[in-house]
Amino acid sequence: MQQDDETAIRALVSTWMEATRTGDTAKVLELMADDVVFLVAGRPPFGKREFETAVTAQAGTPMRFDGASEIDEIRVMGDWAFMRTRLTVTATQPGKPPVVRSGNTLSILEKRDGRWLLARDANLLTTAGAGTAAA
Amino acid sequence: MQQDDETAIRALVSTWMEATRTGDTAKVLELMADDVVFLVAGRPPFGKREFETAVTAQAGTPMRFDGASEIDEIRVMGDWAFMRTRLTVTATQPGKPPVVRSGNTLSILEKRDGRWLLARDANLLTTAGAGTAAA
Repeated sequence: MQQDDETAIRALVSTWMEATRTGDTAKVLELMADDVVFLVAGRPPFGKREFETAVTAQAGTPMRFDGASEIDEIRVMGDWAFMRTRLTVTATQPGKPPVVRSGNTLSILEKRDGRWLLARDANLLTTAGAGTAAA
Repeated sequence: MQQDDETAIRALVSTWMEATRTGDTAKVLELMADDVVFLVAGRPPFGKREFETAVTAQAGTPMRFDGASEIDEIRVMGDWAFMRTRLTVTATQPGKPPVVRSGNTLSILEKRDGRWLLARDANLLTTAGAGTAAA
């Protein structure tokens, strides 16, 4: 069961990255709980609606995103889990150099009706590219 | 039980803040698991030994720390819990203006032998003072 849960959480990460790459906002939104809380530096916590607004605004621009996620740790406790990753996100616009942000994440996931969903997410990415080396 | 656990976790936070204020490094170290992982922006994850080295180095300087922590959320799942806080840390040195860092944290706690310990910690503090307003 534990192994099945880990496999399902890894699949969630892969699906998230692929949906981000292809600009499939609806798919990304399906992967998070309605009461998800996102934490980033320099601004208050925000939720699903604000995430959707930001991503939808970007969808109207020529900006494209690509990324890679390496999972450092998954721990499953029943219907809850936490995960640490090293994440790199590259944003590209025509005629401009790509902007690369990388760093660590700490996420809480919750299993609801048999499906794992992102529930809390702390994103420590910086443009400096630091924070990505293995500990 | 759930209420007892929440009370114990709130006590851990209070003790941590007080021990930081008084420079009681040994007390702070007692509040974290030996395999704790700290995540901050711009550098790789680090553990208890690196935390101790950094705090011990500061103990030899006239720098003093004070702080305030507001707990936004605690969720207990058996012997594990997660917590979100809004944290403000003020560092002061004689003859210099104080440096204030504030922002959100997302932490994982683990109950071992009946005691709650910090197990994973994502610290999103910035000197800008942003990220501290309620969502």
